[in-house]
Amino acid sequence: MEFKSYSSLSEALIASKKFPFNPRKRKVNVLNSVGYYSYEDILSPDDFPRYSKSAVDGYAIQSRNTISSSRINPSFFRVVGESSPEKDFEGIVKEGEAVKIYTGGKLPEGTDSVVMMEDTEILLDNVRIFVPVRKFQNVSLKGEDIERGYVLVRKGKRITPPHIVAFLEVGIKNIEVYDFRIGIISTGNEIVNGKVINSTQPLLKEYLKWNGFEADSLGTVGDDEDEIRKKIEQENNDIFIITGGTGPSDRDVLSNFLENNATKIFHGLKIRPARTSGLFIYGNKPIFVFSGLPVAALIAVENIFLPIISQWTGIELNKKNYVEGQLSRSIVNTLGFRSFVRVKIDWSNNPPRIIPIRVTGSGVIYSIIDADGILEVDENNEGFQEGDTVKVHLLRW
Amino acid sequence: MEFKSYSSLSEALIASKKFPFNPRKRKVNVLNSVGYYSYEDILSPDDFPRYSKSAVDGYAIQSRNTISSSRINPSFFRVVGESSPEKDFEGIVKEGEAVKIYTGGKLPEGTDSVVMMEDTEILLDNVRIFVPVRKFQNVSLKGEDIERGYVLVRKGKRITPPHIVAFLEVGIKNIEVYDFRIGIISTGNEIVNGKVINSTQPLLKEYLKWNGFEADSLGTVGDDEDEIRKKIEQENNDIFIITGGTGPSDRDVLSNFLENNATKIFHGLKIRPARTSGLFIYGNKPIFVFSGLPVAALIAVENIFLPIISQWTGIELNKKNYVEGQLSRSIVNTLGFRSFVRVKIDWSNNPPRIIPIRVTGSGVIYSIIDADGILEVDENNEGFQEGDTVKVHLLRW
Repeated sequence: MEFKSYSSLSEALIASKKFPFNPRKRKVNVLNSVGYYSYEDILSPDDFPRYSKSAVDGYAIQSRNTISSSRINPSFFRVVGESSPEKDFEGIVKEGEAVKIYTGGKLPEGTDSVVMMEDTEILLDNVRIFVPVRKFQNVSLKGEDIERGYVLVRKGKRITPPHIVAFLEVGIKNIEVYDFRIGIISTGNEIVNGKVINSTQPLLKEYLKWNGFEADSLGTVGDDEDEIRKKIEQENNDIFIITGGTGPSDRDVLSNFLENNATKIFHGLKIRPARTSGLFIYGNKPIFVFSGLPVAALIAVENIFLPIISQWTGIELNKKNYVEGQLSRSIVNTLGFRSFVRVKIDWSNNPPRIIPIRVTGSGVIYSIIDADGILEVDENNEGFQEGDTVKVHLLRW
Repeated sequence: MEFKSYSSLSEALIASKKFPFNPRKRKVNVLNSVGYYSYEDILSPDDFPRYSKSAVDGYAIQSRNTISSSRINPSFFRVVGESSPEKDFEGIVKEGEAVKIYTGGKLPEGTDSVVMMEDTEILLDNVRIFVPVRKFQNVSLKGEDIERGYVLVRKGKRITPPHIVAFLEVGIKNIEVYDFRIGIISTGNEIVNGKVINSTQPLLKEYLKWNGFEADSLGTVGDDEDEIRKKIEQENNDIFIITGGTGPSDRDVLSNFLENNATKIFHGLKIRPARTSGLFIYGNKPIFVFSGLPVAALIAVENIFLPIISQWTGIELNKKNYVEGQLSRSIVNTLGFRSFVRVKIDWSNNPPRIIPIRVTGSGVIYSIIDADGILEVDENNEGFQEGDTVKVHLLRW
């Protein structure tokens, strides 16, 4: 049995644009912010380094007095104190004076450069300098790394471990991140009665978490319209993903319930796998419906759910990590369908060898366990020949 | 001031091999196993599918009775029951009988194939079949996806979301994962007295976590040999990473303590940044010492700590995700040093453009915030020219 009509993936993405989804935001301590998506452009409130400091061990001086310094004709400075990361030199350094300085020590007022220890010799209170020194030599200037106002993270970008360093160094304690909760519901009497194992729900939960999204496992309901309605109405998640019973037949209870009670954005896509995918709005909440088969559901989340969330929120999912390689054998595509072919990548070749994984049945698990990437074959493409150069999106693990 | 001698990175890796590090193992529920590294070859204890089942809606039959079926000359079968994912057909199907079957329903005993609904017509208790059907047609055979004994995960591999599906479907409830705790200690009076912010410790903790390793933030101790000794002896972590005071001078208290009290595996490397990196064994525990500067410490963890952990344990860190691209400007390397150049990647070009990030001082934070990858330039290479094709390792976020 078939849907009356199927949309292409791009039609589905366009159709979903008009829905006004409003994600909330939440404050998190920067120490716990890794993995979340920033809700704001995070600007640096300060310079980093916060003050100019020495990049070496040596003597801080006024450079203009060393122009003609050499080993035969050294310049002399009187050492008046010390500056280290631990303790600044507090005074103002005058003409002809130097301050002993350690790596990371604050550059004292009145000096503009640091001469390295090995280019000097100490004699009582005086230091002899054997080389000419340029202005700002061996100095990390205030703000040279991060200037006040520099955008540390753009809105929608994911926070990664190095961001913590920037936040802490410029004094940012908390940031705002996107906050919405996804609820995953499975349907199917065969799961409720224990005949079929529900591996799809934990898969989607963990996959979303891997991508920085919090999802609740909301369990399974039977193939019953009232049960489905009650479940959706009782849970206060912002978005639902419901799996199972998404096809076009009378026995697809979820389809029937939503087709009759919700606003359809799309249902039925020209893609393989996951062609029973749909999006409905029920009581102002988006409900994505995906196949109950784990592989189809995973491909739907990656290629339908996440791109639409990205459209709605401005969240940037990931850099488009792809690799080009040579196809190890030909693959055939049905015209009119976009196929997501799971492939292994043999990196020992140059260019890498792209090896399509053989799939005997639908929803074959090893095709996704063993995969390194996905080769998309679009609607107008009949396939590829062995030896063709193809572009593959790397899976994110 | 300099070390008396420097090892190359590969010498350091070889030297560290002889240390017998014994990671422990721990049992985790498969639902919480994602991100960990498997301590065992995980073999499937069962076939999946556990029984042969239908891939379509239709009628399960004995195929040999349909050899000459056609629309003009259909074959007839008596329908004796139903099989669905929810409920099996319990009896044995005899010659000339058929069972109505739904997608995912168990193939009844006595049948070997399924004819699709649309190629049949029902007439009272009989079904007319209009096409010839091959043996096993439209059937997902027992074990065709995962055979009993198939290795689902090799020892040392990281558990990813799709693995959960396989574990659950074949009945694996718990698995053994690697278990060792890394302790991160910072040293430096300038951190203790609050003059310098400790951003390196949270960076390393989060970076290790991102890579599937649990690390404890153990705080900061002053530049004092007794304090350092007490701290190491009081914490019961299996491995330590200690940052700060790792250089060759008298003021590098950590260096002095370990050089005098621990067994040195290596200290001082021909790499940039992170050349003060070292590995010592103290009381049978490995202690890695790295620069207190965040960028140097991060590069040390990525290129020294993780590869050595991998050598010791058999943990496979990641697939070697790399990309080849064209260098946007020339870069110069000091012969004898291996440089880790942080680069941005412009994917809109083909091949991608590899853009080295300009670094004015040491430990520049934005070089690692903005980086997409690392270009390694080895000891014998003076650098690359603009336009050269180079291979870049992608950062893992």
